[in-house]
Amino acid sequence: MVPEKWALAVLLLQLCSAGCGFCGKVLVWPCDMSHWLNIKVILEELTEKGHEVTVLTFPHTKLIDYRKPSPLNFEVLPSEVQKESVDNVHDKFLDLILNVLPNLEPWQSTIKLNNFLIETTEILKIMCEGAVYNQTFMKKLQETNYDVMLIDPVLPCGELIAELLKVPFVLTLRISTGGMKEKHCGKLPAPPSYVPVQMVALTDQMTFLERVKNTMLSVFFDFWIRDYDIHFWDQFYSKALGRRTTLCETLGKAEIWLIRTYWDFEFPRPYLPNFEFVGGLHCKPPKPLPKEIEKFVQNSGEDGIVVFSLGSIVHYITEEKANLIASALAQIPQKVLWRHSGKKPATLGANTQLYDWIPQNDLLGHPKTKAFITHGGINGIYEAIYHGVPMVGIPMFADQYDNIAHMKAKGAAVEVNINTMTSADLLNALRTVINNPSYKKNVMRLSKIHHDQPVKPLDRAVFWIEFVMHHKGAKHLRPASHDLTWFQYHSLDVIGFLLACTVSAIFLIIKCCLFFCLKFGKPEKKNKRG
Amino acid sequence: MVPEKWALAVLLLQLCSAGCGFCGKVLVWPCDMSHWLNIKVILEELTEKGHEVTVLTFPHTKLIDYRKPSPLNFEVLPSEVQKESVDNVHDKFLDLILNVLPNLEPWQSTIKLNNFLIETTEILKIMCEGAVYNQTFMKKLQETNYDVMLIDPVLPCGELIAELLKVPFVLTLRISTGGMKEKHCGKLPAPPSYVPVQMVALTDQMTFLERVKNTMLSVFFDFWIRDYDIHFWDQFYSKALGRRTTLCETLGKAEIWLIRTYWDFEFPRPYLPNFEFVGGLHCKPPKPLPKEIEKFVQNSGEDGIVVFSLGSIVHYITEEKANLIASALAQIPQKVLWRHSGKKPATLGANTQLYDWIPQNDLLGHPKTKAFITHGGINGIYEAIYHGVPMVGIPMFADQYDNIAHMKAKGAAVEVNINTMTSADLLNALRTVINNPSYKKNVMRLSKIHHDQPVKPLDRAVFWIEFVMHHKGAKHLRPASHDLTWFQYHSLDVIGFLLACTVSAIFLIIKCCLFFCLKFGKPEKKNKRG
Repeated sequence: MVPEKWALAVLLLQLCSAGCGFCGKVLVWPCDMSHWLNIKVILEELTEKGHEVTVLTFPHTKLIDYRKPSPLNFEVLPSEVQKESVDNVHDKFLDLILNVLPNLEPWQSTIKLNNFLIETTEILKIMCEGAVYNQTFMKKLQETNYDVMLIDPVLPCGELIAELLKVPFVLTLRISTGGMKEKHCGKLPAPPSYVPVQMVALTDQMTFLERVKNTMLSVFFDFWIRDYDIHFWDQFYSKALGRRTTLCETLGKAEIWLIRTYWDFEFPRPYLPNFEFVGGLHCKPPKPLPKEIEKFVQNSGEDGIVVFSLGSIVHYITEEKANLIASALAQIPQKVLWRHSGKKPATLGANTQLYDWIPQNDLLGHPKTKAFITHGGINGIYEAIYHGVPMVGIPMFADQYDNIAHMKAKGAAVEVNINTMTSADLLNALRTVINNPSYKKNVMRLSKIHHDQPVKPLDRAVFWIEFVMHHKGAKHLRPASHDLTWFQYHSLDVIGFLLACTVSAIFLIIKCCLFFCLKFGKPEKKNKRG
Repeated sequence: MVPEKWALAVLLLQLCSAGCGFCGKVLVWPCDMSHWLNIKVILEELTEKGHEVTVLTFPHTKLIDYRKPSPLNFEVLPSEVQKESVDNVHDKFLDLILNVLPNLEPWQSTIKLNNFLIETTEILKIMCEGAVYNQTFMKKLQETNYDVMLIDPVLPCGELIAELLKVPFVLTLRISTGGMKEKHCGKLPAPPSYVPVQMVALTDQMTFLERVKNTMLSVFFDFWIRDYDIHFWDQFYSKALGRRTTLCETLGKAEIWLIRTYWDFEFPRPYLPNFEFVGGLHCKPPKPLPKEIEKFVQNSGEDGIVVFSLGSIVHYITEEKANLIASALAQIPQKVLWRHSGKKPATLGANTQLYDWIPQNDLLGHPKTKAFITHGGINGIYEAIYHGVPMVGIPMFADQYDNIAHMKAKGAAVEVNINTMTSADLLNALRTVINNPSYKKNVMRLSKIHHDQPVKPLDRAVFWIEFVMHHKGAKHLRPASHDLTWFQYHSLDVIGFLLACTVSAIFLIIKCCLFFCLKFGKPEKKNKRG
């Protein structure tokens, strides 16, 4: 090696060790759309600390832009799935969340959404097979000797790849359907008396009938999860690993579960030492706004502004709904910045400006921001908590009902039903969160809780990923419940045994009593008679 | 005020704000002996950060030396209890742990120890009454406006004082009898299938029969706790607070439970967000040894040294037992430093040196230390984990059996029974932990886990105490289970309701079937007959 190259190598080594004591290799199984926006923040932090991050991605993605230059490496999965199939799924998904789900109860919408995911199983199967049965691809991954895998478990396959590569893995998720993956695969206890089943929009303060509903839904999800596409994946995983196993067992091998919430948002509940609540890790102090937007914001004067976004998916709302919303927005004194890419609504007021994209975090962190109208995605909710902005929630699918229910229960949001709302409903909701000081006060309390943590969420997430790299796992945090069958876990065998002992003891005592009564009782009678 | 005084005041203010953004007033309800050594470390850190710390103490203490100059303030409780009574209790306690407890099973010893505590209720009652019914004393405390109370709940009364003063409080404890205070008052879930009942020396890997034992002991403690001296204190607390309450309800108002263990020691188990595991917070890097001791240690050469201490209570072991121990120690090549204040044993080897007191943490941190013979107090165990020293455990009472069981299960200790041990047993145990490299390897693994935490235990403990001061509590971490009755908590009302519904439905269906059978079944028959 020529001297210059040596010097460069030494410099690189020094730079690397400045970032982290141990520079490792991280393999990532992400999920597209808003999930990607969250995990990307962790990955960027890892690369900044000197780790080498490789993201596995499908060829046809929406937000994972693997073609752009990036500090992240991308490894495109060999897959036979055509772009048309992916677009078709995307369109079906939009139709579902815009037209079908808003008419359902939260828990029904959860099931509908999962049924949709089951419909996509065929595509997922082809994608997964394309990876795990492609020897050249797997050999390449194997030879890289990754230290840890970071997996978003919404779509299966990531944990299977980790198992095949024998790499310890960390999960990152908000919640699964009904919280079942955490409960059954992660062994997270969830007593139905005060832990609401996730995705059903209940709180920890339940009436008797709500507790009945929660218990019934808990049992329903317990059994339903077994009939879900799980069976298909159980067989798929067993075949790929060459031993009898299940998706749940494989997921349960996660070293750490990084949950995208914290106690500013969650209702206090039992958890396990390998669960880390790192909600809001993507939030940052606001950067200055683009000039044009800053000018519009400043023009709002004393009244301030309202930020309105329905997230990365829902650009498309019907013209009728857009007009209804616009006419409500036109009646408030605040200026409104609305992320909307459909046709301009006829009723749009002079105070409302439409944008294809808004710097949401920077806007929410602006001192003039009075309220945030949101679909209730967890990323947006956390930006509002971080910056202390009260919310009007218009949930539409998945965890959004739950997220808004949490914010409502904590007095930081008002909910509006996307399906039944009138212009007046939205207007009233907006006026309430802006003019009733309790909403600002409550969200500021949550904000203070969020900012007053021993370690910032992003640093905690990175800490535990690095911990797994350094220690080749985190087995000291893994509860022994993973080694028990479901009836052992619930002590049903012990209860059965103790009941059997008790019954036997009672039986023996009765038998003995009868025996002695017969033996010593009868002769007396005989004597008397005699 | 003269200028010099102003300058001094400003300087003091600056010094204070350098330590903490908010300098508060902390009131402390401690427990004497080894408990005091642990809490003292937190208190010293709090005073260093600029907080004003006042310790409530009884007049006759062993290790709480309130007469010495100290950065802590001491407030001596007005009490009519005589020194003789306290000494009498102390002697009875020593007799119990030296002569009675070693002959019992761990769980029996736990009960015996609690019965002893119940016997001391009368003294505790007088002490508590002396405080809470002394208006001058309570008024003085009230007027000081404390921001937080730090309470060791081994002895009752602290949480009652906190309630009377309306000050939020933080608990600091290792465990209570059978873990019942945490389970019943703190609502900490403890599934008996993999969470061993505390103080019974079981691990998280239980056989079927061990799970049966664990479940039975769990139920036993559940019911036993209700018959314990709890009833007395329930009445005492209700009278003092002027409303119907219980000791458990009062304890359950704790904002944070600081537990004196961590996952290097604990078996992974479910816990709650207001439980913080801060084990080993008292451990520090070793300081240089006193010259004479360092010389003795250096003379050990390649073989190194063994540190032997039975803690702050047990200086007094029988002559026979001391001789037995001494003759075992005489047979190892290591030098031994033995904390022993009784008569010099006749069989003492030339390699063994007796000391009234040893700098235990510094000795355990010495590179020549090969093993630690310990009674298994949590402070000593944590010093051994911190410095990575394998252990020989000779547990005698309270949590010591449990502590050694944890270290045994993690492969870092060998246990010796104080009652039945022979010289050969102790010798074998010592040779095993010194010569079998797995013990060193395992304790080093625990040590690495201990040192690789996002925040040091002491900093976490102080963080949460300060959090409670700043936010006037930590209600966002308090689970809603505190608001449920025991049958609501276990969903018994919901289960009953659902069972009743099911039975009613079945009954109705059967009735309907019978009705239709009778209505439409019989005429046919009649027709046929007709």
